[in-house]
Amino acid sequence: MIIVMSAGATDQEAEAVRTQIRAHGLSPHDNVGTQRVVIAVLGDVAPVREHLMSKLNSMSGIQSVTQISRPYKLASRESHPEDTVIEVRGTRIGNGTLTIMAGPCSVENREMMLETATAVAKAGATILRGGAFKPRTSPYSFQGLGLEGLQYLAEARQATGLPVITEVMEPNLVDVVAQHADILQVGTRNMQNYSLLTAVGKAGKPVMLKRGYGATIEEWLMAAEYIISSGQPNVILCERGIRTFETYTRNTLDLTAVPLLHHLTHLPVIVDPSHATGKRWLVRPMALAAVAAGADGIMVEVHPNPDEALSDGEQSLTFDQFADMAGALRHIHDEVRTLIKDPYVSDGPINVGGDSKH
Amino acid sequence: MIIVMSAGATDQEAEAVRTQIRAHGLSPHDNVGTQRVVIAVLGDVAPVREHLMSKLNSMSGIQSVTQISRPYKLASRESHPEDTVIEVRGTRIGNGTLTIMAGPCSVENREMMLETATAVAKAGATILRGGAFKPRTSPYSFQGLGLEGLQYLAEARQATGLPVITEVMEPNLVDVVAQHADILQVGTRNMQNYSLLTAVGKAGKPVMLKRGYGATIEEWLMAAEYIISSGQPNVILCERGIRTFETYTRNTLDLTAVPLLHHLTHLPVIVDPSHATGKRWLVRPMALAAVAAGADGIMVEVHPNPDEALSDGEQSLTFDQFADMAGALRHIHDEVRTLIKDPYVSDGPINVGGDSKH
Amino acid sequence: MIIVMSAGATDQEAEAVRTQIRAHGLSPHDNVGTQRVVIAVLGDVAPVREHLMSKLNSMSGIQSVTQISRPYKLASRESHPEDTVIEVRGTRIGNGTLTIMAGPCSVENREMMLETATAVAKAGATILRGGAFKPRTSPYSFQGLGLEGLQYLAEARQATGLPVITEVMEPNLVDVVAQHADILQVGTRNMQNYSLLTAVGKAGKPVMLKRGYGATIEEWLMAAEYIISSGQPNVILCERGIRTFETYTRNTLDLTAVPLLHHLTHLPVIVDPSHATGKRWLVRPMALAAVAAGADGIMVEVHPNPDEALSDGEQSLTFDQFADMAGALRHIHDEVRTLIKDPYVSDGPINVGGDSKH
Amino acid sequence: MIIVMSAGATDQEAEAVRTQIRAHGLSPHDNVGTQRVVIAVLGDVAPVREHLMSKLNSMSGIQSVTQISRPYKLASRESHPEDTVIEVRGTRIGNGTLTIMAGPCSVENREMMLETATAVAKAGATILRGGAFKPRTSPYSFQGLGLEGLQYLAEARQATGLPVITEVMEPNLVDVVAQHADILQVGTRNMQNYSLLTAVGKAGKPVMLKRGYGATIEEWLMAAEYIISSGQPNVILCERGIRTFETYTRNTLDLTAVPLLHHLTHLPVIVDPSHATGKRWLVRPMALAAVAAGADGIMVEVHPNPDEALSDGEQSLTFDQFADMAGALRHIHDEVRTLIKDPYVSDGPINVGGDSKH
Repeated sequence: MIIVMSAGATDQEAEAVRTQIRAHGLSPHDNVGTQRVVIAVLGDVAPVREHLMSKLNSMSGIQSVTQISRPYKLASRESHPEDTVIEVRGTRIGNGTLTIMAGPCSVENREMMLETATAVAKAGATILRGGAFKPRTSPYSFQGLGLEGLQYLAEARQATGLPVITEVMEPNLVDVVAQHADILQVGTRNMQNYSLLTAVGKAGKPVMLKRGYGATIEEWLMAAEYIISSGQPNVILCERGIRTFETYTRNTLDLTAVPLLHHLTHLPVIVDPSHATGKRWLVRPMALAAVAAGADGIMVEVHPNPDEALSDGEQSLTFDQFADMAGALRHIHDEVRTLIKDPYVSDGPINVGGDSKH
Repeated sequence: MIIVMSAGATDQEAEAVRTQIRAHGLSPHDNVGTQRVVIAVLGDVAPVREHLMSKLNSMSGIQSVTQISRPYKLASRESHPEDTVIEVRGTRIGNGTLTIMAGPCSVENREMMLETATAVAKAGATILRGGAFKPRTSPYSFQGLGLEGLQYLAEARQATGLPVITEVMEPNLVDVVAQHADILQVGTRNMQNYSLLTAVGKAGKPVMLKRGYGATIEEWLMAAEYIISSGQPNVILCERGIRTFETYTRNTLDLTAVPLLHHLTHLPVIVDPSHATGKRWLVRPMALAAVAAGADGIMVEVHPNPDEALSDGEQSLTFDQFADMAGALRHIHDEVRTLIKDPYVSDGPINVGGDSKH
Repeated sequence: MIIVMSAGATDQEAEAVRTQIRAHGLSPHDNVGTQRVVIAVLGDVAPVREHLMSKLNSMSGIQSVTQISRPYKLASRESHPEDTVIEVRGTRIGNGTLTIMAGPCSVENREMMLETATAVAKAGATILRGGAFKPRTSPYSFQGLGLEGLQYLAEARQATGLPVITEVMEPNLVDVVAQHADILQVGTRNMQNYSLLTAVGKAGKPVMLKRGYGATIEEWLMAAEYIISSGQPNVILCERGIRTFETYTRNTLDLTAVPLLHHLTHLPVIVDPSHATGKRWLVRPMALAAVAAGADGIMVEVHPNPDEALSDGEQSLTFDQFADMAGALRHIHDEVRTLIKDPYVSDGPINVGGDSKH
Repeated sequence: MIIVMSAGATDQEAEAVRTQIRAHGLSPHDNVGTQRVVIAVLGDVAPVREHLMSKLNSMSGIQSVTQISRPYKLASRESHPEDTVIEVRGTRIGNGTLTIMAGPCSVENREMMLETATAVAKAGATILRGGAFKPRTSPYSFQGLGLEGLQYLAEARQATGLPVITEVMEPNLVDVVAQHADILQVGTRNMQNYSLLTAVGKAGKPVMLKRGYGATIEEWLMAAEYIISSGQPNVILCERGIRTFETYTRNTLDLTAVPLLHHLTHLPVIVDPSHATGKRWLVRPMALAAVAAGADGIMVEVHPNPDEALSDGEQSLTFDQFADMAGALRHIHDEVRTLIKDPYVSDGPINVGGDSKH
C-alpha cells in the first residue's frame, strides 16, 4: 500500500499517517526521490487492510492510497513511477546517460590496477570495477588480494577520478569494503544471501545486485526489496546471464529482462556481457545489443594482457578492444535514446506471469 | 573434408576427385556460391581418411584439402567462408541489408491479409509472412485456412510485390506450399522432423529454419545440414527464443546466438521477437537489440486489430506500431553496420564448447 | 464437457445427445472402455456452453454433465476415471502388472535381432523393442535398416511370441510400420509433429508417445490428445528425460512426472532410463526408482555386445545385466504395488500449475 | 594428489611427506576415517607436480601416489574409496541404514514443536528437523523464531532423544546454532555462500549441504570441498530439486543424482521430496523412488495441521501420512538394499561429462 500525501500536507499530517500504520502492526517507509511525501506500508497488509483503509479515509492531508499488486513493493514502478537516478561522485546512473563500468576481473597487483584504470578512464569508462574479494568455485583457486586490493582500487580512483565498484561477499566485510568503494556489488551466487542483502542495505552506499544465474526476475526484485527495505534506495540491477541447456556459451544473456525491468521497476539496469558470454569476441555485439534494448549501461572486464589474467582471461577485453567498443556504444546509445519510447508505458494493464509457453 | 580445386582446374580433374570420393563409399557435394570449385566430402570419413588423403595427394588440380572439425559440414563457416546471400524475387537476404518479414500470425481471411500486406509493404517490410497451416498445441484450436490461406498469400504478393514466406508442417504438403510461397518455413516444433527437413531440402525453394525451443545451437545447425545436404543451399536461421525457468516471458530470446552463428556458419540469421517475448510492447526493444547484435533481419507479427486476432494477438503489432518500429530499425541498422566488425574474425582459434559454467 | 448417460439409457437417447452436440458446431466423441455410454464434447465449448446446457437439461437418459477444466479432454482423468488398460497380443499394459520393453537401439542385422529377442524374452521382457527407422541428429549417421529392419522385428516376434514396438518417423510410413509392429512409437523429436500424431491416431494400433525433451507435461498430454481425438484411445506415455543445465547426465529424468501423470490422466506411464541417463551403470538404479514411483513399466536398450553397437552403445545393457535387473525390478514391483496408494486420490482439489518456485 | 602411506609407515615418515608438500607451497590434509594414513595434497599442484613427484619417489614409507582428476579432491571417491559414515548421538548416516529426517518447516511455537517431534519419533524418524532461521523470498514474510526456535528444538531433542538438524544462514550465527543443533544445514540459496561454507566447516558439527536449485553436481561437490577443506569431513549432500521449464511441479527432482553421487563421492546422499515437488500427495511416491535409487535417507516436512502452517503447508505431511509413509519406506529400503549392487563399481573408466545431449 502506498500513501501519497497532498502537496500542502503538513509534517504533523504525515506523522499521523505513520502512527496509524504502526498502530496496525505495519511499518511506514518514506519513499526517497519524490517531490511529495510518499509513504509505503510494509508488512502483511492483507489482514488489516479494511480497518486501516477506514482509518486513513478519515484523515487529512492524504491525496491518494494505492494498493501494490506485486510482492516487491518499494522496488515496484507502481510505488515509485519516476526512474531512480543514482549519483556517485558526480557521475549519474539511470538518468538517460550511458554508464560504462570497466576494469579487471581481479585486482592482481598495484601496477596492473593503475594501468588498467588509466586506460579505461581515457577510453570513456564512467565507473571503475575490480575484484578484491573473489567468489571462486574452487577453494584452491586465487581468492583475490582482499584488503590490499581495496587499497589499490582506492588509489586508482584517486588517479582517475572514477568512482569504484567492487564485490563484497560477507556481512562482516561490508563495513571495510564500504570504506573503500563507492558502490557495493552483490554477486550472482549471493543474490539470495539475505544476511548480506540486509547488511549492504544498511551500509550507506549504493548497491549493484547481480541476478542469480538461476533466479527469476521476480526473485531478483524481491532481493532488491531486501536491500531497499533495509534502508538503501539506490539499487542497480545487473543482468549477467542465466543457466540453460545451451553449451556453446557460458550463460544465456537474457536481454529481454532490460525492457521488462524498466516496466516493472524504477531501478537502473546494467548488463554484463563478459560473464554472460565467456568469450571476448562476443562482448562487443552483446554490449551493443544491450544498449539498443535500453540498458542504462554495461559492465565489462578489461585486462592489460588477458592471456595472463589470473581469472576470466578468456572473456577480458584488451585496452584497444575496450576503447573501440566504448566509442561504438556511445554512438549507438545516442541514436537509440531518441528512438526508445518510454519503456514502461504500454497499452492497458500488463500481465507478465502465468502465460502458457510455446 | 573440403577439397578446393585450383583456379585453372579442369572439369575432368574435378570429376576425377568426385569419382575417388565415391570409390571410398562417400558422397561428393559441390558447394554453391563460391568462385572456385569446392567439393565437400559427406559421410563417415574417419575410417577411410588416411587412404583417401593418399589418393588425393597424387591427383592434379587440387589446391587444398581441409578437415572440417564440426559435425555440420556444409553449414559450417569452415567449408564456406563467404556469407550466403539469398535472392528471392529481387530481394536479398544476408548481404548486409536489413530484412523485415512482417504479416499476420494466421491468414484469417482475404480482406485482412490484403489489408495487412499493403500496410506492412508501405511501412518498409521486405518479405510478407502469414500462416496458412498453423501448428497448434491443441487439436481443438483454429488450425489455419490451409490451401485457401495460401491463395490469399499469393494474391497479397501480387498486390504488393513482396515475396511470401509461410510455414509447411508435413512432407506431403511441401509441393503445394512451394507452389504458392517463395520461402518455406519450418517451425520450432518441427526442427528435428527429419522427413520434413529432407522434403523441403528437395523442393527448390529457400527455407527458413526456426530454432527448436529446446534445441542447442549445434543441433540447429545439424538440422540445417539435413536441408543443405538434401539439395537446398539457401537456408535462413531464425532465433525465436528457448525455454528456461523464467516465467515473465514466453521464452528467453537468445540474442548471443546471432554473433555466434555468424562465426560458426555462413547462413543468414533472422530474429523473431514476437514469439520470443509474447508481449507486444517488448517486440520493439528486442527487435532493436537484435539488429544491434548483427542480425540480418527480423520477423514480426502484425495485425489490423490485434485484440481480435484468432491467434497470438497479445504479441501482434498494430500497423502504426509496426511502421514506427520499422523506421527505428532501419536507422539503427544503418548506424550499426558501420560499427560491426567482421563478426567471424576473432583472435586465435575459438573453442565454443566444453566450458565450465559459472 | 463430458456427458455420462444413465445405466438404462437407450441408443436413441444417446444419439439425440450426439445430434444436439453437433447442432452446436461441436463434435461428440464416445469414450472407450467405460461401462456406461460416455460422450465427450470436443471443440470450443465456451461460446455455446450455456445454450447447450439448457438443451441437455431438457433431455432424457442423461446421468451427469461434467465440465473438463483442463485443455486436454479425452486424455484427462476427469473424463475417464478408470485406468486405461491396453492389451497387445495377450500382454496387458497399465493393469498393475510390470511391463518391460527391451531390445536393441537399432536393428543392426537379422542375427543380432533374433539373438537379443531370445535373450530378453527368456529374462522376462514382455515387449520387444528395436529401431528400424532411426532419428539421427546428423544426416551422415546410420539411419537404420528401414523395411528390412521391420521384417527382422516381425521374425523376432514370431520366434519369441513377444509383441513388437518400433518407432515411426513420418506419416507416409505409418501404414507399413503398422503392418509389422504391434505398438507404434513416436519419438521425442516428433512429440509435436502434428501430422504424424494424426496419422498414427488413425492407424489402428496402440501408440507410445515419448515426451519431447523440451516439453512440459501439459504439452505432452495435448500431444496425446491429438492421437486420441484422431481415433486411437490406447496411448502409452513414456518419460525419457528433459533438458536442463546439468551436464553430468545426458538428460534429467523427471520421475515426478509418473505420479503426476497418474493423477492427471488415465493413460499408462512407462519410463526409459537408458536415454535419460546415457550411461549403462545408471540404468538399473533409475529403473528401480521408476518402478517405486509407480511406473507401469520401463523401456531399456539391450545389446549382445554394447561396445560394438552402431548407436547408443554406452547406454545399452548386456544380456546378463538385463536379466539381473529384470529380476530386481519384478521383486520391487511386487513389493511396491502393495504399498502404493491409489495415486490419483488426494485430499481436496489439486492445483498443479501457477505455483511460485523456490 | 593423494598419498597413501604403507601399513608400517612411521609417524616420522608421514611427517616428512607433509613437510615436503609444504615446501612446494601446497597443503597436506590428512583424510579421516581410513585405516592407513592418507594425505591429500591441496592447492594448485600442476606447476610443481613433476618436482614434487621426484621428491616423493625418493622417500620411504609411501605405498602409492594417486592423481585426482576431478576438481573436488577431498570430496572425491578417488581420494576416499570407503563410504563416509557419520555418527550423531548414536544414530548413523551412510552405513546402509535408512535415515529419516522429519519435522516442521518452521518451529512455530513450543507446543507444535514438541507435539510434532513426539509424533515423528514414534513413527520412526531418526533425526528431527525444524527451521528456526528461515530464508524467505520476501523480507515481509515470517522469518522464523530465531534463538527461541533453537531452544524449542533442543527441548524436543531432550524429549525424544532424536538428534536435531536446523538451517544456519549467516557466518555470525554459526556458533549459536552449533550450540543447539547436532547437524548444521546449509540451504539451497546459500550453496555458494563461501564465507558460510567456511564457517560451518570450522564449527565442529556435521553439515548437510542442500543442492543449489540452479547448481550442477560438480559445483555442489566443489561447495562440499569448501566445507571439508575447512576442517569438517562429515558432510551430507541433500538433493531437493532443480529448476527447469516444467511448471506443474515446484522443482524437478533429479534422482539420477543419487547413484551418480555414490559413484563420484564417498559422502552420504539424502533426498528432500517435500521442497522438490511442493505437493503433499507427491511426497510419498518420490520418497519411495529416492530409496529405490539408493538414497541414504530422506528429509520431509511434517506438521500437526498443514493447512494452518506458517510456511510450506501445501507440502507438509500430517502425522498419519508420515507414519504410513515411514513404514512403506522401511519396507522398500530393506528389499532394495539386498538388490543394489555396489553403486560405484562400474565396468571400466567412467566419463561423466562432455557428452553430447540428445
